[in-house]
Amino acid sequence: MNDLIDHRIRQFWTADGGDAAHLPVSALRWLTKRIGTLTANTVVPEPTVPASALGETVRDEFVALVGKNYVLLTAEDRLGRAGGLSYLDLLRRRGVGTPEVPDAVVLPEDPDQVQRVIDICVRHDVGVVPFGGGTSVVGGVNAVRGDKSAVIALDLVRLDKLVSVDQVSRIAVLQAGVRGPEAERLLAEHGLTLGHVPQSFERATIGGFAATRSAGQASAGYGRFEDMVSGVRLATPRGEWRLGVAPASAAGPDLRQLAVGSEGTLGVITEVALRVRPAPKVHRYEGYVLDGWDSGSAVVRELAQHGVLADVTRLSDVDETEVSLALNTGWKTTVLKRYVRARGIAEPCQLILGWEGVTTKDFSARRRAVMAVLKSSGAVRIGKALGETWLHGRFSGPRQRDALLDNGVCVETLETAAHWSKLSQLHDDVRAALTASLGAPIVMCHVSHAYETGASLYFTVITARDATDPVGQWERAKKAASEAITGLGTISHHHAVGIDHAPYLGAEIGEIGLDILRAAKNAVDPTGILNPGKLIGG
Amino acid sequence: MNDLIDHRIRQFWTADGGDAAHLPVSALRWLTKRIGTLTANTVVPEPTVPASALGETVRDEFVALVGKNYVLLTAEDRLGRAGGLSYLDLLRRRGVGTPEVPDAVVLPEDPDQVQRVIDICVRHDVGVVPFGGGTSVVGGVNAVRGDKSAVIALDLVRLDKLVSVDQVSRIAVLQAGVRGPEAERLLAEHGLTLGHVPQSFERATIGGFAATRSAGQASAGYGRFEDMVSGVRLATPRGEWRLGVAPASAAGPDLRQLAVGSEGTLGVITEVALRVRPAPKVHRYEGYVLDGWDSGSAVVRELAQHGVLADVTRLSDVDETEVSLALNTGWKTTVLKRYVRARGIAEPCQLILGWEGVTTKDFSARRRAVMAVLKSSGAVRIGKALGETWLHGRFSGPRQRDALLDNGVCVETLETAAHWSKLSQLHDDVRAALTASLGAPIVMCHVSHAYETGASLYFTVITARDATDPVGQWERAKKAASEAITGLGTISHHHAVGIDHAPYLGAEIGEIGLDILRAAKNAVDPTGILNPGKLIGG
Repeated sequence: MNDLIDHRIRQFWTADGGDAAHLPVSALRWLTKRIGTLTANTVVPEPTVPASALGETVRDEFVALVGKNYVLLTAEDRLGRAGGLSYLDLLRRRGVGTPEVPDAVVLPEDPDQVQRVIDICVRHDVGVVPFGGGTSVVGGVNAVRGDKSAVIALDLVRLDKLVSVDQVSRIAVLQAGVRGPEAERLLAEHGLTLGHVPQSFERATIGGFAATRSAGQASAGYGRFEDMVSGVRLATPRGEWRLGVAPASAAGPDLRQLAVGSEGTLGVITEVALRVRPAPKVHRYEGYVLDGWDSGSAVVRELAQHGVLADVTRLSDVDETEVSLALNTGWKTTVLKRYVRARGIAEPCQLILGWEGVTTKDFSARRRAVMAVLKSSGAVRIGKALGETWLHGRFSGPRQRDALLDNGVCVETLETAAHWSKLSQLHDDVRAALTASLGAPIVMCHVSHAYETGASLYFTVITARDATDPVGQWERAKKAASEAITGLGTISHHHAVGIDHAPYLGAEIGEIGLDILRAAKNAVDPTGILNPGKLIGG
Repeated sequence: MNDLIDHRIRQFWTADGGDAAHLPVSALRWLTKRIGTLTANTVVPEPTVPASALGETVRDEFVALVGKNYVLLTAEDRLGRAGGLSYLDLLRRRGVGTPEVPDAVVLPEDPDQVQRVIDICVRHDVGVVPFGGGTSVVGGVNAVRGDKSAVIALDLVRLDKLVSVDQVSRIAVLQAGVRGPEAERLLAEHGLTLGHVPQSFERATIGGFAATRSAGQASAGYGRFEDMVSGVRLATPRGEWRLGVAPASAAGPDLRQLAVGSEGTLGVITEVALRVRPAPKVHRYEGYVLDGWDSGSAVVRELAQHGVLADVTRLSDVDETEVSLALNTGWKTTVLKRYVRARGIAEPCQLILGWEGVTTKDFSARRRAVMAVLKSSGAVRIGKALGETWLHGRFSGPRQRDALLDNGVCVETLETAAHWSKLSQLHDDVRAALTASLGAPIVMCHVSHAYETGASLYFTVITARDATDPVGQWERAKKAASEAITGLGTISHHHAVGIDHAPYLGAEIGEIGLDILRAAKNAVDPTGILNPGKLIGG
């Protein structure tokens, strides 16, 4: 790789880019006791990368446009954009299965260059996979070639600017390639925050958040990402497309909500105008324990329907609570367990609450309202330490997962959302489906996003990896879980559709819905170069 | 009309259905002083209604499906669905211009019959105008025939049921033809409310609210109508289409936001699943006066950005405040004016604030937060009487308008929304455009819907009607206002597009946006029978 190229341009194929967490011995011992003997990884073979199928003419046009340093053709660079972070993606990074590798990586420097890259791809019928942080867990950035002769990863990392700030309207325009932490750093210079903190925060980008309808851990306080989107700018085969002139409108259907969630199939998002807020200066995170999943989720429902949710409101079920305590080794666990039992909690469910504000006054009244509900529910206060522990580990999931994978564990997450009256059944059915498929997995679940009419459910599944058929093992489990979800809830609350959920979209939005999405795509991308195979399938 | 037919089926062609308010003499005198001599209406000729162009075969199929009592063919019944309530519609009801009259009125009794009416219309290539309360002010229910041989008004008045209530999820499913008051009555039986109170509340329907992205006067508290929509059921030429399985989703674009606002062009909404809340038992409405429009709207902005808007928050500009006081005749006005001047207010702008709750505790903390902001802004409290006066007159606008029209006044409203940083310019530009076009009109404005990033502006224009060219007079003024809006704000915040705003939609959503809407329509309504000429034009 050329020395001139910014280090950000490097994307690692190797499992963890060197920053995987190490699994504590005690945690591994506990896991083995729960899920059985594990077969750790053997030496990982470097995958064979086929030669780039990109024609010389196209390549030369890319080079003329963005410069040769920003057209990457080495196997290493192409492998670095060969997928996201789903369990199957991570298995591929460990030598199981064949990655779909783009024929080139093109790195435009601004929205105008993105548009011209698209124009070149239209002329030469080359597929385009928009690539941000590469954190998709649903196959959303896999370099599917479809019927194209070649496919490029259009890496947006150089679109890293804060374009404008409107302090009066509280709107900031950010380019699509800005990652979570950088967005917060740029906004903090203006005393502002976005407040969008999904688990992928450290790597994921503004464009990716918008393209996938991301929801951050503080969504109760700051809203889902689509709630923040005031306007979007996209590069499409038909030229540039801009939306968003007002805070609300009755000028027909809200097409922003069609662009948001389009997962690169209707255009490449290059800029997003976002509602921002004053940067918080104080926070308060604390932990509670509620007794049982159903009564715990009833408490969260009450908070949501009273309009007093904490900015972060996160309820774990019994299993997740147990594992969470088990993996935090040491004396705390035992003491905590005894204390909770002594306080009369039979089935402890951990509740994390967090508030942020410029001063504590911003949330003190809201916190008091929550406390009133908690008191009448018999919640046991654990304290700030538990809240802070959660806060500091909030982005560590992906690293822990890498460590688990290295030790022969099959670990994946999946998520959904449903109306409150169906939430309990959804929780039970998905657990049952995963258990029936996998034998005796650990299935953990939490509510992380609550609304007046319902909530999300986020499942983490851990089981011993089937050394002979690891891919089939997970594919069958995922299918069983997805079928359990269909009819009760949505196939995704915040992970998006990508490739993995495409077979289930029709059951949710109907054949008419699928046809409308196809028609919209055909109107803007008649030759189908944009993110082939995603959202509406092949 | 057959006696068996429910009286609700009657729709009046005559201007006011007999319930127009009478304009007080003092108000008329004041008006004449401000806008000059008025030419009151002469005798209104009953319009000539062309014979129905509906073929006998189609008619017989309708009759076989819904029964002969629910296929209306008289001139009177057809005229009753020949338009909405725009100024030009009201002129047509006074003999100026030619109404577009449907060839028949068909009244199905349930969603299934609606679907079968659509099927018949597809087979015979008959246009379908969905008709709810008939309160469109943008031509949304005008019976445009387009390229069809005939067009029917599909009146949804018989779809008047509360289908289901999910108390746990706080979701109620209402049929499309339920009017505002009836929706509240049905929900009140379950201790619930929708809280959606636009000015059209008394006549407009659930389906119409959804089809046009309606916003109620208490939108700050209850949300815009689209925020309440949890799911929709539509009858389309492709068959039934249902959406909405979860409170939030990342399963691709949010197609509910495409159905909502589609104005009958993508399907006929037959049922809407709506987020509901506990019915309020107490309310508090009060009035304040702020000094000047810019500082007044800055106060509303501060409330919105602090997240403490009252459920109803409504700021009038200087002119609207003056007229509002003038039209409330009697001693109050003079005393009030002196009082306000004595308290140092040079340019009084009326602010109406309203809160609702099950108990006052539900809003006391929120009210205190508002009071803190008002205090530091120098607002002068007028008291509850002003708030209650507003509350009791909140739906009387249309009746007052009829009375004004009868007296030779040209009176119309138009509305928009923009980001806060553009609001002042938008206010000035629209006023200037209307004034330049109309000479010396009274132009009044208020903010009735505020958001973190911006607000709506609602203009009322009053001028002496040009007796020789009343239509041209308003068409020129409307064009001037619309052009002033374009580029600064949205062409409609809550009145929708219909026919009147269709020429300006392209500037707002781009040619790409228009093409996507056309493609979506073509996917679901390939022969274009649904509400011809609306939203995306002819």
